[in-house]
Amino acid sequence: MTDFAATKAAFALPEGVAYLDGNSLGPLPKAAPGRVAHAMKAEWGRRLIRGWNECGWMAAPTALGDRVGRLIGAPPGTTVMGDTLSVKVYQALAAALEMRPDRRVILSDTGNFPSDLYMAEGLIRTLGQGHELRLVAPEAVEEAIGEDVAALMLTEVDYRTGRRHDMRALTARAHAAGALAIWDLAHSAGAIPVDLSAAGADFAVGCTYKYLNGGPGAPAFMHVASRHLDRARPALSGWLGHEAPFDFDLHYRAGTGIDRMRVGTPPILQLAALEAALDVWDDVDMTALDARRAALTDRLVVAVEGSCEGVALASPRDAGLRGSQVSFRHPEAYAVMQALIAQGVIGDFRAPDILRFGLAPLYNDEADVDRAAAVLAEVLATRAWDAPEYAARKAVT
Amino acid sequence: MTDFAATKAAFALPEGVAYLDGNSLGPLPKAAPGRVAHAMKAEWGRRLIRGWNECGWMAAPTALGDRVGRLIGAPPGTTVMGDTLSVKVYQALAAALEMRPDRRVILSDTGNFPSDLYMAEGLIRTLGQGHELRLVAPEAVEEAIGEDVAALMLTEVDYRTGRRHDMRALTARAHAAGALAIWDLAHSAGAIPVDLSAAGADFAVGCTYKYLNGGPGAPAFMHVASRHLDRARPALSGWLGHEAPFDFDLHYRAGTGIDRMRVGTPPILQLAALEAALDVWDDVDMTALDARRAALTDRLVVAVEGSCEGVALASPRDAGLRGSQVSFRHPEAYAVMQALIAQGVIGDFRAPDILRFGLAPLYNDEADVDRAAAVLAEVLATRAWDAPEYAARKAVT
Repeated sequence: MTDFAATKAAFALPEGVAYLDGNSLGPLPKAAPGRVAHAMKAEWGRRLIRGWNECGWMAAPTALGDRVGRLIGAPPGTTVMGDTLSVKVYQALAAALEMRPDRRVILSDTGNFPSDLYMAEGLIRTLGQGHELRLVAPEAVEEAIGEDVAALMLTEVDYRTGRRHDMRALTARAHAAGALAIWDLAHSAGAIPVDLSAAGADFAVGCTYKYLNGGPGAPAFMHVASRHLDRARPALSGWLGHEAPFDFDLHYRAGTGIDRMRVGTPPILQLAALEAALDVWDDVDMTALDARRAALTDRLVVAVEGSCEGVALASPRDAGLRGSQVSFRHPEAYAVMQALIAQGVIGDFRAPDILRFGLAPLYNDEADVDRAAAVLAEVLATRAWDAPEYAARKAVT
Repeated sequence: MTDFAATKAAFALPEGVAYLDGNSLGPLPKAAPGRVAHAMKAEWGRRLIRGWNECGWMAAPTALGDRVGRLIGAPPGTTVMGDTLSVKVYQALAAALEMRPDRRVILSDTGNFPSDLYMAEGLIRTLGQGHELRLVAPEAVEEAIGEDVAALMLTEVDYRTGRRHDMRALTARAHAAGALAIWDLAHSAGAIPVDLSAAGADFAVGCTYKYLNGGPGAPAFMHVASRHLDRARPALSGWLGHEAPFDFDLHYRAGTGIDRMRVGTPPILQLAALEAALDVWDDVDMTALDARRAALTDRLVVAVEGSCEGVALASPRDAGLRGSQVSFRHPEAYAVMQALIAQGVIGDFRAPDILRFGLAPLYNDEADVDRAAAVLAEVLATRAWDAPEYAARKAVT
């Protein structure tokens, strides 16, 4: 059994705050500052350049990739850390399109991260081959998978509503149509059980600063199915993806395995923080996590619907059909969320009208849920959100 | 006057080591661990998601970009931090090629970083338009700049020999031929005075973990000349380069200014370390730095040539024609460098036969130079390098 009181104790959570925004930035693992300080003082400071070989820096992207891989059903040797999620989207999509040279459609949905869609648009322009980014509603994806689709590119859990795609069914459907499937797991990794191998996914990407708690700007991960490892070619053909980087050859030769998807120098300080964050996951059973996710998100739905006026559930009612978040719509969602934050209940707003609450069983508990519902009820009943200081909408992440 | 004793005191240098490898990884600034600890505990830990707006995280890539810009002659608002140098090479080269749609040649030299050449090869393959990466010897670049060249892509200082290109003359020559000039400043930024504006460079990229001392995996920088800022289009069209990221539009619209070259979430911990490293540069006069660079590198040439048998100078003899390093050739350079490192003189080896010594006036002094020469003389005279433990060549960075 997973001891969620113990995992909660592994995080530095500010007093008086119910933090329900771990789907945007996970909290600080208590062990992370010490780990990073060690990487700086004992490794960088004392070993200097020798750190690359002596302190495991060079191997960190694949070593930590395997640890993330365990959480997403990816076999060892198929996941690597580095860059940002956007860069890895580009890397995966470019490789997939090259594997389907006679097709021109990238199929995605309007619930995908705009960032992923932007990267696809940039790649399409760079390729200059007339590819089309075809966007349909999330519910219409399955029937839109036609014989002209080169790549199905989806985010498993919708960042606004929390609606979850059926990865296994859609991947099978894509394969039946001759397409490849690329899954963005940004709101899945550490949030719900993921089994990439069972789903037969071709590529997967994700970030580590949300439910995995790697910290602001933590590196992304990329997974390539074993069967594609020696065929998928990197568009971003970087030095550390070369077969023999230290030969300093003038021409690129793709390395073997997942290493070929590496690009440049890995961010050692961010990787040190991520390593500490992944330690918390070592004793977590994903089935237990999932049960608690369902219980906590259900509890929030029931509490809010029982006490709050004027909000409408935006997430699927069935816990099995959503991620580890619950969203509600309110016409003044921005101001409402500002009022909540002012009272120490930190969720976030997503345009145009979404109140979003991430619930992470690693550190959220029933008290967080109950407080969020109670404060929301009060803010709505008293119209506390209708104050000048909450009106001005500004950029929030 | 710059007080180089004070700048040296700003670094944590291990006892007993003469560190002459800052052109691979600069040493730890003493203030960096505290800065990173603050970013982790006070910012990430206590402000959580609010750090993006309240702690300057979102603005860090351009704020630090301007500070790097001061060291390379780039006006404020033309330099941004992020990603790795390889990714920024791709971003710059793709934009340049798009601005010269009727030309197909990328001209570079055999002294360029292989990593840059690999990225160009990947871009060429992705573009699929028959571009050619034309490589000539460093000395042959000027006459190779013909009317078919779309982009001249060079690293100013040769990573092996330290030979320096004439950025101003070659850029002028490129412009006269109708080409754009992209400069990699990895071995220039913080090493020699650079004036991108005076040189008329179109694009520049570089890393910050060498002479700028930002730490292992510190982010790269990218500069776009003011005159191109609204024309250069990012191939890696990321969320944070969007005109209005928080509108979450489904389609990309390039942002204004250098922000459009941003891609994904910036690495806040690495940026915190870099900020501390850049503080050391605040009181450094680049003319004084350059004079000391010339003096220290000259001193090493004279000392080695006066005391060492069997090595040949691989760098230009004229300090004005080289960067902040001195290289020597020796048939057993790998073993020789291993023997030096074993005695606390840390330089590095570059295939096939180069002993490389970076000299950074910020923390290297005459004692380092004299010790390096003396230990090298002894290693060569006693053939200390000819021991089994130094024979096996393995990967070093």
